Amino acid sequence: MSRAPRRQDFPVAQVRRYLEPGPIVLVSSAWQGQRNIMTVGWHLVMEFSPSLVGCVISSANHSFEMIRRSRECVINLPTTVLTDQVVGIGNCSGAEVDKFESFGLTAQTAHQVQAPLIRECHASFECRLHDDALVKRYNLFVFEVVKAHVAPSPKHPRTLHYTGDGVFMVAGQAISRRSMFRPGML
Amino acid sequence: MSRAPRRQDFPVAQVRRYLEPGPIVLVSSAWQGQRNIMTVGWHLVMEFSPSLVGCVISSANHSFEMIRRSRECVINLPTTVLTDQVVGIGNCSGAEVDKFESFGLTAQTAHQVQAPLIRECHASFECRLHDDALVKRYNLFVFEVVKAHVAPSPKHPRTLHYTGDGVFMVAGQAISRRSMFRPGML
Repeated sequence: MSRAPRRQDFPVAQVRRYLEPGPIVLVSSAWQGQRNIMTVGWHLVMEFSPSLVGCVISSANHSFEMIRRSRECVINLPTTVLTDQVVGIGNCSGAEVDKFESFGLTAQTAHQVQAPLIRECHASFECRLHDDALVKRYNLFVFEVVKAHVAPSPKHPRTLHYTGDGVFMVAGQAISRRSMFRPGML
Repeated sequence: MSRAPRRQDFPVAQVRRYLEPGPIVLVSSAWQGQRNIMTVGWHLVMEFSPSLVGCVISSANHSFEMIRRSRECVINLPTTVLTDQVVGIGNCSGAEVDKFESFGLTAQTAHQVQAPLIRECHASFECRLHDDALVKRYNLFVFEVVKAHVAPSPKHPRTLHYTGDGVFMVAGQAISRRSMFRPGML
């Protein structure tokens, strides 16, 4: 499999397609000439339109202040080809290393934000901070996805889903129950 | 596979093991003699201790007022044996049917809350409403898990992960990268 999937524009109102299944994501940020990446498993979809995603970003992370100040980030979707990078990124600090260099990842210019896309990921979602009301209490950032880039193939990417304890569940088969849904629920 | 797994007490600080991978969950509630179940895919882990979980529960759902008023619910974890029930529950309203009866599910008495456990699920997490600050703005409820019941086997349950459009991803293989983690990160 190629290390850098070809990605296309994707409707921001449909990012639940990739985030609702609960994958580990790589959140990239930029602030005052610095760039960084962190591994995040605590996120949720909050609204289709505007396209809102909530993320817990611990204040212990180097990325926390970069995102809080720049009010931007990119949520990138890695697959199993990047498993070791995902783990490595989660186990070192951006205060000490440039994670793009250390892990052989390509920072690609985004369209709507200063934070870089990670070119090797299956998808990248450009985000602006929409609401910081719960940042102080829970480190919960509510982002709006303002631009989405997704590889059309494979249709069901082998995403990583963290269970704690160093163990990931890998996305398995897809099953459809479409015929059982009421039209308004699809 | 048995329809009703044998479940044991589980540490509430470790529920991320089951929720962080992003499964569809069944949220059960009770209020003034009524009980209900809804299907929820928009949730996230927010803290280990207290054990906090955030859930978006749309105000269009019959469960919304039941949970808002009772300030309790149970988050239940279904597996693939319950796929058709998960879809059926998401496509009808508790205003019209008793979903426990309609879908052949067993309401089991919880220990800490009035809302019932769903006995056929792999796990059930009893929750109390911890913070309703973002309910009005985003329908986001922050719950504290106060008691957890989990089937010890299978170790990696075949959970369902919703991608929209009537399609679910089924949890696949588990892979460990434990040896790559810094001790403090496990």
